[in-house]
Amino acid sequence: MSDVSVKTVEKWGCLELSVKAGAEGNPFTSQNIKAVFSCPQETVTAEGFYDGDNTYKVRFMPSFEGSYQYKIVLKNGSEEEPLEEGSFCCVPASEGNHGPVRVANTFHFAYEDGTPYYPIGTTCYVWDLQSDERIEETLQTLKESAFNKIRFCIFPKHYDYNLGEPRSYPYEGTPMDSSVLTKENFMQYNGKAEGNHFDLSSFRPDHFRHIEKCILALQKLGIEADIIVMHPYDRWGFSCMTREQDELYWRYVLARFSAFRNVWWSLANEYDLMWSKTLEDWEGYAKLICTYDPYHHLRSIHNCRPFYDHHRPWITHCSIQRQDIYKTAELVNQLRETYMKPVVLDEIAYEGNIQHGWGNISGEEMTRRFWEAACRGGYPGHGETFMHPENVLWWSHGGTLHGESHKRFHLLRDILKETPGIGLAPWEGCRWDEVCAVPEQDIRPVKSYYLFYYSFMRPSFRDYYFDDETSFEVKVIDTWEMTVENRGVFKGKFRVELPGKPYMAVQIRKHE
Amino acid sequence: MSDVSVKTVEKWGCLELSVKAGAEGNPFTSQNIKAVFSCPQETVTAEGFYDGDNTYKVRFMPSFEGSYQYKIVLKNGSEEEPLEEGSFCCVPASEGNHGPVRVANTFHFAYEDGTPYYPIGTTCYVWDLQSDERIEETLQTLKESAFNKIRFCIFPKHYDYNLGEPRSYPYEGTPMDSSVLTKENFMQYNGKAEGNHFDLSSFRPDHFRHIEKCILALQKLGIEADIIVMHPYDRWGFSCMTREQDELYWRYVLARFSAFRNVWWSLANEYDLMWSKTLEDWEGYAKLICTYDPYHHLRSIHNCRPFYDHHRPWITHCSIQRQDIYKTAELVNQLRETYMKPVVLDEIAYEGNIQHGWGNISGEEMTRRFWEAACRGGYPGHGETFMHPENVLWWSHGGTLHGESHKRFHLLRDILKETPGIGLAPWEGCRWDEVCAVPEQDIRPVKSYYLFYYSFMRPSFRDYYFDDETSFEVKVIDTWEMTVENRGVFKGKFRVELPGKPYMAVQIRKHE
Repeated sequence: MSDVSVKTVEKWGCLELSVKAGAEGNPFTSQNIKAVFSCPQETVTAEGFYDGDNTYKVRFMPSFEGSYQYKIVLKNGSEEEPLEEGSFCCVPASEGNHGPVRVANTFHFAYEDGTPYYPIGTTCYVWDLQSDERIEETLQTLKESAFNKIRFCIFPKHYDYNLGEPRSYPYEGTPMDSSVLTKENFMQYNGKAEGNHFDLSSFRPDHFRHIEKCILALQKLGIEADIIVMHPYDRWGFSCMTREQDELYWRYVLARFSAFRNVWWSLANEYDLMWSKTLEDWEGYAKLICTYDPYHHLRSIHNCRPFYDHHRPWITHCSIQRQDIYKTAELVNQLRETYMKPVVLDEIAYEGNIQHGWGNISGEEMTRRFWEAACRGGYPGHGETFMHPENVLWWSHGGTLHGESHKRFHLLRDILKETPGIGLAPWEGCRWDEVCAVPEQDIRPVKSYYLFYYSFMRPSFRDYYFDDETSFEVKVIDTWEMTVENRGVFKGKFRVELPGKPYMAVQIRKHE
Repeated sequence: MSDVSVKTVEKWGCLELSVKAGAEGNPFTSQNIKAVFSCPQETVTAEGFYDGDNTYKVRFMPSFEGSYQYKIVLKNGSEEEPLEEGSFCCVPASEGNHGPVRVANTFHFAYEDGTPYYPIGTTCYVWDLQSDERIEETLQTLKESAFNKIRFCIFPKHYDYNLGEPRSYPYEGTPMDSSVLTKENFMQYNGKAEGNHFDLSSFRPDHFRHIEKCILALQKLGIEADIIVMHPYDRWGFSCMTREQDELYWRYVLARFSAFRNVWWSLANEYDLMWSKTLEDWEGYAKLICTYDPYHHLRSIHNCRPFYDHHRPWITHCSIQRQDIYKTAELVNQLRETYMKPVVLDEIAYEGNIQHGWGNISGEEMTRRFWEAACRGGYPGHGETFMHPENVLWWSHGGTLHGESHKRFHLLRDILKETPGIGLAPWEGCRWDEVCAVPEQDIRPVKSYYLFYYSFMRPSFRDYYFDDETSFEVKVIDTWEMTVENRGVFKGKFRVELPGKPYMAVQIRKHE
């Protein structure tokens, strides 16, 4: 393979192949392409998609370095016509490319290259469907933030503070006149409202191409794209399509997005508010993902009220919306025990001041919930809903951050990265009035690492005792003021003086 | 009854009669007096007690105005010898004397004269056993506070920050040398420790006389004395006396204190930590109260971990210590439904900064718990545990207050007093993200009064709608900043602008 013209793709990068093929009828349904990619370690079949302009594309994410062969086939009903063969070289991953995120041990994540991944997520439901300027602003904000996961939608969003038009629609057609909408009447436009005329079998490839640009922009920032494929906040009818239309949509999405390494699948936001869907529907979509995403990206489904049964084998991690106003992150222990999967608290209320109870907690409380969740072995999620003169709320539109909690997540991320091994577990030996995390897989009676968190409590000191022999390095972390004080090395029974303020953590690490 | 020398006692005041009687052996056990008091509306038998110096006393609280007759009898085993007869006149209650507190309706209290009583309690376990100066200071603090109930003990307290000697002991004898105690070793002195020599059948009347002075000083301030008769924080052996010794103690306490109208009985603090007592013991003490307190003062028993069965008929109200670190006042609804009795949250953690998780919440959180409990139809309790150079912590010793929450209770008390009828109930019609109280006995679909509380949430506005006809006066209450803003009169659908800060309440009252 000394041919200098050989195509190269980096490991976990995305190879895209195109073929021109004229079609009779609807090019989205009348025919398609697929391709088989093979190297000594894997053979993968990838579905293609129609991208407009008589062009079919197929994408592939290689997982092994070295030479790959591929064959493209045109499918027309049950007939398959070979179109093209070729090869390419998979070169080593570039810096910052660690591969897709996987479940590394029962409760935690790592990138495919083994680097631990500690999700610090946020939610901007339709940041991707805003203006170029807003999107640029959002990406800049994300770049400066500690976020490494963001949840967002493919379909536009119709909801309080979300009455405008998206930048584009996923289907050919015309939407209803949105100028009739007001803060008072918008709830009456629910599901498919009068005046919407969409051809639900004709996608607008530009809508999806744009979302791909967003996914790749996130990838460049090292941020996972937790894609919400369906949601109930709808006036156009996208939430109540037929089973056949849904399947066409799912397969289009899967064919287009699966080969991006930073994609996660969220089947739906608040699935239980999508009244027209049944359990059988959800299990059907899950089956489509399992069939047509050959890379096994992470999969979950997010509730409003009742959790989906996170025991289902296709669910890789719990994507939780808190069910109780008061106890949120505190329930991580119990969720871990119940589901034996990573617990991601994708919504624990948003920092802000809007009228809705899910969108007006303080920065202190959000930060507290983050630490509380993290020190119980779970993964909290952020969002912001501050009143804004132009109704630009981070939670939906992105833009800039106005809250206080996000500034504190860099520290949490840095502390999480200091965890020996992969992930924290709640320590059963801690006292009734403290939360303490230890390394998930440290089964020794005296652990190598303890991360105590005192939440809203304000002790002026705490006494510790692990054993008589081990020396420990002690750091006092003010999670709100973002200070870390080195307190030196201790052994046996020892006391750590604290400032009598809330939101303190104490990191105790075996001194080697 | 024109005789100017006739004794007078005010209604719900305390009449005390004394007789001299020499006795053989132990005057506390060898004989006693009792007296029968009668007027047309009641006949009450009151047990007497030995008060030292060959003097037996008997006390009586009359409940009806007019002339009473009494007969005193000397009891010696089963023999009864008439000692004295007489009469007195019960005059109207003086200002501020509303009689003992009773359960007025299922969930709330009123004084016997019908005035609603909204408990705003605090805890100073052994304020009564401190120096005269400290006691005076405590009374001054109470006078300026909104507290109208205080929990405290008869027995001295041995515990962290409580290692000193009480001002007196309830029994003749000598205590162990307390100079050996340190913060490190005090836990080893538990129950009856070596070196204590008390005669558990010989009371020290001065100890009890002093406590009576304290009860009366509280009465003068309009404060209920929630007397903790037994408790586990002991090094002298008072927590592990024999059944017979306990009974002698209970009857002595009942004979001495029952006739004070502001007395409540708390059988024990953290009854479940008194390992030597059984359920049968507790039920036995309850029976003694029911037998020897002829005035039916309020009765409860306070837990550490498991609640006592508050369904028991002798329990007049729940005296709750929160079982969960995070959810405390929020559980009032469920406690009301479970026990169908007034819910008094006597311990929901203390404001402070000591090392223990039960003693280091913020003033904000304490105030929040107070409003949260009150707006759910329950009664929160306060305590303070701030580190102090001389270990004077309000929670045990009284003295002065150092926290922030207590300043906010005057406002809560004033708002509670505005409740139409007696007591607040959680409103079932409120939205998922608010707490709202309505008058307990207002069963109309549109209530005369709504008290909304937004807790840690920070809405910038809320919309309300009750009906199209009723006009409502709206006040916005900042429970932390202690401001009340009159917002005027509204009808139909209306919006109330709020500052987007935590701890806001909205009072909505029918405009007459």
